[in-house]
Amino acid sequence: MTVGPDDVHRAADRIEGRVRRTPVIEVVVGGHRIVLKLELLQHTGSFKPRGAFNRILGAESIPPAGIIAASGGNHGLATAYVAGELGINAEVFVPEVSPRVKVEAIQALGATVVVGGALYHDALVASQQRAAETGALQIHAYNHPLTVAGQGTMAAEISDQVLDAAEILIAVGGGGLVSGAVAWFSDRLPVLAVEPSGSPALHQALSAGRPIDVEIDSIASDSLGARSIGDVPWSVLVEHPPTPLLVSDSAIVAAQRWLWANLKLVVEPGGATAFAAVLDGSHTPSETGTTVVVVCGANTDPSLVVG
Amino acid sequence: MTVGPDDVHRAADRIEGRVRRTPVIEVVVGGHRIVLKLELLQHTGSFKPRGAFNRILGAESIPPAGIIAASGGNHGLATAYVAGELGINAEVFVPEVSPRVKVEAIQALGATVVVGGALYHDALVASQQRAAETGALQIHAYNHPLTVAGQGTMAAEISDQVLDAAEILIAVGGGGLVSGAVAWFSDRLPVLAVEPSGSPALHQALSAGRPIDVEIDSIASDSLGARSIGDVPWSVLVEHPPTPLLVSDSAIVAAQRWLWANLKLVVEPGGATAFAAVLDGSHTPSETGTTVVVVCGANTDPSLVVG
Repeated sequence: MTVGPDDVHRAADRIEGRVRRTPVIEVVVGGHRIVLKLELLQHTGSFKPRGAFNRILGAESIPPAGIIAASGGNHGLATAYVAGELGINAEVFVPEVSPRVKVEAIQALGATVVVGGALYHDALVASQQRAAETGALQIHAYNHPLTVAGQGTMAAEISDQVLDAAEILIAVGGGGLVSGAVAWFSDRLPVLAVEPSGSPALHQALSAGRPIDVEIDSIASDSLGARSIGDVPWSVLVEHPPTPLLVSDSAIVAAQRWLWANLKLVVEPGGATAFAAVLDGSHTPSETGTTVVVVCGANTDPSLVVG
Repeated sequence: MTVGPDDVHRAADRIEGRVRRTPVIEVVVGGHRIVLKLELLQHTGSFKPRGAFNRILGAESIPPAGIIAASGGNHGLATAYVAGELGINAEVFVPEVSPRVKVEAIQALGATVVVGGALYHDALVASQQRAAETGALQIHAYNHPLTVAGQGTMAAEISDQVLDAAEILIAVGGGGLVSGAVAWFSDRLPVLAVEPSGSPALHQALSAGRPIDVEIDSIASDSLGARSIGDVPWSVLVEHPPTPLLVSDSAIVAAQRWLWANLKLVVEPGGATAFAAVLDGSHTPSETGTTVVVVCGANTDPSLVVG
């Protein structure tokens, strides 16, 4: 395994004071008591700064050109935020499809935004070409051991906060957060990996025995729409494979509406995906301990949630 | 003092499992580390169910006609919610000025809604007349010892959650929440009572030495716009007077926008009022312990917050 509990411990020490210890709250769903980990209250509205801080603070050196990333979403926001906090220059390549509100938010955090092609993959390629020219350090959204270990610090907090935790439900895109949790828990606690039916990169990888490219068509594709699980997350996941679950887009929307109606939380589709698996009944919470569900992202237009 | 720590202890036992233990989160404001008590994550989006549960569960008996309340806002929502949870009939009298969205939410919780005059005071009088006819139990928004003790359970949670708490900032309307906190803390911890400049019922009462009627003109008047401090809250407050602070409407709006930009929380004006006193610099956080700020209400249209 390329990332383990010791790496998560080191990450936690490295990023302490930089990220928020996000709170948990108990709720009742269909008669079941569950605990939500409110990671959407993290800086920039998602868990991404954990991995980005650990990746950058753990680098041997930061080149004069600073850092570079490709993302029109949560990773772009996190990279820009971390660069601003550390006083580092940042370029963020965004695809043309990125919502203007997110692009403006990335700029507001002080990063230079470059539109780098039609889709995410184009922006990634453009950012890599640019990095080769400038010497900037490429910060991938999930495919690096330091990033995975940084995301694992969220799981370490859950260990402190929910002493009788019996299982953890986590949404999956490229695999950074879920592999961080698996790196932390190893075989100490079951991890359930929830994907939209229209964005099943982990599902397909577990079936095939290796990461493969999948078609993406989901309401949560702006945050979970990676076409395949990254090699680094996969190297962790294959050691202790999580239980995969699929949820429909309509279940995700229902989860967003529940979280607004019952907690007044604005949650993006990807952030509500793990909870959708409980709310739609496809997973029945543990009866012997506490089921913990990670609510991992906030960044959406509230008018889409309030409905 | 009509309400004290023992009453809060009894309230906590009585309503346990009925209300959420709301979480706290640490944030940094102007270089100062403070802790926010996220009471807006309570059922119905405000602290009000604490007092309503304790008032109703502590009553000697519930008449066949059930309960009755006057409020087109958070107290109406809480009363309807508590009645629904306990299987009790509820009538809620709302003034004509109440936003339709809140009136519909009260109905959706199962209460019978009656429009009872132009303003809150008219609705209160109408509800009292109706209670005299039906025999229903009147549930006042703040002017009852059981209600005050119920609100005090939020302060008791803070004692458990923030071991080095040095001071608590709380917004004030009719005085229920702040007097509950004073009943709990007595002279163990300073309570700072924050009011909008245009809604200064406690400020004026402390100056006059007794509750007096004030003019109300504030963005937070839908939740904090009581014309005077209730007799019961006052009997508690006069024993250990909190430090009064005033904030402008523009400071409240800035606090709402900060909480959205930095935590992705939708907070109503009254819910952001205590935080406004820190954000606008009118109160400098403690240097010897942790300053705790209560964020006590969520119920507003998100489009007004996102701006």
